[in-house]
Amino acid sequence: MLFKVEMKVNIPHDMPAEVAADIKAREKAYAQDLQKQGKWRHLWRVAGSYANVSIFDVEDNAELQDLISNLPLFPYMDITVAPLCRHPSSIHEDDR
Amino acid sequence: MLFKVEMKVNIPHDMPAEVAADIKAREKAYAQDLQKQGKWRHLWRVAGSYANVSIFDVEDNAELQDLISNLPLFPYMDITVAPLCRHPSSIHEDDR
Amino acid sequence: MLFKVEMKVNIPHDMPAEVAADIKAREKAYAQDLQKQGKWRHLWRVAGSYANVSIFDVEDNAELQDLISNLPLFPYMDITVAPLCRHPSSIHEDDR
Amino acid sequence: MLFKVEMKVNIPHDMPAEVAADIKAREKAYAQDLQKQGKWRHLWRVAGSYANVSIFDVEDNAELQDLISNLPLFPYMDITVAPLCRHPSSIHEDDR
Amino acid sequence: MLFKVEMKVNIPHDMPAEVAADIKAREKAYAQDLQKQGKWRHLWRVAGSYANVSIFDVEDNAELQDLISNLPLFPYMDITVAPLCRHPSSIHEDDR
Amino acid sequence: MLFKVEMKVNIPHDMPAEVAADIKAREKAYAQDLQKQGKWRHLWRVAGSYANVSIFDVEDNAELQDLISNLPLFPYMDITVAPLCRHPSSIHEDDR
Amino acid sequence: MLFKVEMKVNIPHDMPAEVAADIKAREKAYAQDLQKQGKWRHLWRVAGSYANVSIFDVEDNAELQDLISNLPLFPYMDITVAPLCRHPSSIHEDDR
Amino acid sequence: MLFKVEMKVNIPHDMPAEVAADIKAREKAYAQDLQKQGKWRHLWRVAGSYANVSIFDVEDNAELQDLISNLPLFPYMDITVAPLCRHPSSIHEDDR
Amino acid sequence: MLFKVEMKVNIPHDMPAEVAADIKAREKAYAQDLQKQGKWRHLWRVAGSYANVSIFDVEDNAELQDLISNLPLFPYMDITVAPLCRHPSSIHEDDR
Amino acid sequence: MLFKVEMKVNIPHDMPAEVAADIKAREKAYAQDLQKQGKWRHLWRVAGSYANVSIFDVEDNAELQDLISNLPLFPYMDITVAPLCRHPSSIHEDDR
Repeated sequence: MLFKVEMKVNIPHDMPAEVAADIKAREKAYAQDLQKQGKWRHLWRVAGSYANVSIFDVEDNAELQDLISNLPLFPYMDITVAPLCRHPSSIHEDDR
Repeated sequence: MLFKVEMKVNIPHDMPAEVAADIKAREKAYAQDLQKQGKWRHLWRVAGSYANVSIFDVEDNAELQDLISNLPLFPYMDITVAPLCRHPSSIHEDDR
Repeated sequence: MLFKVEMKVNIPHDMPAEVAADIKAREKAYAQDLQKQGKWRHLWRVAGSYANVSIFDVEDNAELQDLISNLPLFPYMDITVAPLCRHPSSIHEDDR
Repeated sequence: MLFKVEMKVNIPHDMPAEVAADIKAREKAYAQDLQKQGKWRHLWRVAGSYANVSIFDVEDNAELQDLISNLPLFPYMDITVAPLCRHPSSIHEDDR
Repeated sequence: MLFKVEMKVNIPHDMPAEVAADIKAREKAYAQDLQKQGKWRHLWRVAGSYANVSIFDVEDNAELQDLISNLPLFPYMDITVAPLCRHPSSIHEDDR
Repeated sequence: MLFKVEMKVNIPHDMPAEVAADIKAREKAYAQDLQKQGKWRHLWRVAGSYANVSIFDVEDNAELQDLISNLPLFPYMDITVAPLCRHPSSIHEDDR
Repeated sequence: MLFKVEMKVNIPHDMPAEVAADIKAREKAYAQDLQKQGKWRHLWRVAGSYANVSIFDVEDNAELQDLISNLPLFPYMDITVAPLCRHPSSIHEDDR
Repeated sequence: MLFKVEMKVNIPHDMPAEVAADIKAREKAYAQDLQKQGKWRHLWRVAGSYANVSIFDVEDNAELQDLISNLPLFPYMDITVAPLCRHPSSIHEDDR
Repeated sequence: MLFKVEMKVNIPHDMPAEVAADIKAREKAYAQDLQKQGKWRHLWRVAGSYANVSIFDVEDNAELQDLISNLPLFPYMDITVAPLCRHPSSIHEDDR
Repeated sequence: MLFKVEMKVNIPHDMPAEVAADIKAREKAYAQDLQKQGKWRHLWRVAGSYANVSIFDVEDNAELQDLISNLPLFPYMDITVAPLCRHPSSIHEDDR
């Protein structure tokens, strides 16, 4: 089941650089692990911003909440979620 | 080059049913043709709405304008566009 | 799987009264049928408005889209959707 | 008398972890106590966020204010309230 | 139990003048009747607008919905509602 | 001359508790004094929030500015003001 | 007593040209008469728009409502009002 | 050439009182000097707020930027600007 | 003197095609004439929309109003204006 | 390929003056270097603000992201981006 997830990162200006670097490194490892599992199906940077557009593929709403709330950057992001489903004009089987 | 395009359809309530049906049929044919060409890479329905989230793959801004402004439903949609590029944490080659 | 759905009704002022009455009668029958099936779990009026707050219990996003887009009043409503899941502090088994 | 209450939690980034943990523990105990009393009728997590959708069942506006303003997380939340009542199409006696 | 109700009137420009006059006359009679009953406790014009600020005094949310949805101008107004209760600094017994 | 004044309190999280308590005590005394003078005609809590809806009765705009800018909580509030006047459907002499 | 009044004109596209011309002529005469009386103290066009910024000088809120609600274009304008008073740094006696 | 300028002051709560007093004193002197030069033609307090509405009379956009960016409170204000010109219904020569 | 002007076109759905074609033809001729005069310095389409971003080079606010209000599409556009001036980091003489 | 980029600078009030001066000096050097390369085609100050309107000329979305995310002021700016293309009414070859 697919969800569009948009994340905008707002790291506090007074966060020590090494703390920020650590969080970002854990975020990257976590994001790449979820991509390998097929849970985080697409991940794009929005050009000109510190933000991304993502497509998640999860079992249900509970798994979506579980995956997002465990993002290392979760406390520092504005996140919006939209449930997706197959469009009647889509020709792609996996745009389900 | 990728763009996220979100389209919300607002067909006027006084449009005759057969006119609306014709526009929608042409919209579907056009959307499927662009998908076959690889220009309209993804097309999802936003659940609970008459709206979609799409990913376009175009040569440049001019081609994006050309493809969108020729949508049969173009005069009846609110459309927002966001330029995308490869995210440094993406593991997918085609999330470029 | 639960979703909060909020619907605000905007019937065009020039819709003939008998057309509006027919749509509303079909809407009521449809809503009561979905409630009996357990798909439309809660339905509340927002006091002071022509709007409701609802809880849907569906299999997946696709079923949510199917149920909502078939509402007789669908073309005349502003609808917002939020995916819900079990809250860690909930004591109710069915607030899943 | 029912109210929809939506709460979005914004804990300051510089709050010490043990202070936050204490507030959250008291919030959970308080929320579960109100649920047991039947005052806090439903409590759902909004998937992908640190937010909830709740249904309160109170005597009057004054009790609503009393219950909400005593939430341990009250100073750290954006809260919106909507008064609810029975929908004419509802088939559930307790969606009053 | 008190509610602040704000109403902004938007009469369609193509409504015949005699229809509008009739609705407004019924609205005025209805508003004055509710004031006499004590249900509509205050009614002020917002200077420079076709809008009002009102205080309703009702038994519960259901009565609020009943009174507002029967306003002759109800289909032509944007209405917002806020539940009120006694302020701890108020010295007026009836600002309950 | 009447004005609707809405005040939303946002006390900084790092304000020492005794400083906040002192400001609130002075705010309460000030508010009660203005009520006794008849300048602050109504004061209601908005249920579920740290906010109020008030009706001020002042000589002119300058007095309104004078009364509001001297509120001890003035630097910590979002305040909106709407000028009111007698509604042609009001039956209350003092809703002038 | 001064008020800033901003007016944005939205004449319906289907209003006959001679009706619009008549309303505008009456609006101009009314505006010039109020200027001559000193009630409409300033009147500026916002460059690049069909909108104005005005300063009214009235006895009280009721007179403001009376003057604005009698504008021939009143049903076709979005109007916002802000009460003004003397600024402590002003050197102009009549910026009272 | 006239511009409407609206300024809303947001002094940080942790600014030392003597620093704030010094900035405000310099702001007042600067504002009065510009008024004497005729550059800052009107200056009104918005009643009930820490904000003003002003009319600037400058040579061109560059001078407007120069005057505003040198305000001692410039880093602490939300500022909006609207270019003005003579309204065809104005009877005042200097509402140019 | 430069202004950024953004125009979004909203042609009514019930405008006859030949009327719309005539307005658009006159708009194009007018826009090209102003470009030749150097008054309309830049004109870009916003990709994916029926909107443009423009830079006007005018004598003063009054000329800006004159040029924009004479656009054949003026009654059918949402228009926003921002005054521009030379940026201290610009290396281009004509970004004045 | 052209993009309109709008940047609003929000330097934290507690940033030491010498740190801010260093960032601004590096921003200026970076901006002038990109202008010399032809990547940053136009740079205007928005009069009355600490903001700019810019036109970037880049190979693709990825280059846009690369140039913007390397701005020394990037962490302290609100940035909006709009893709541009040639307008059919433009007479300028380089408004491509």
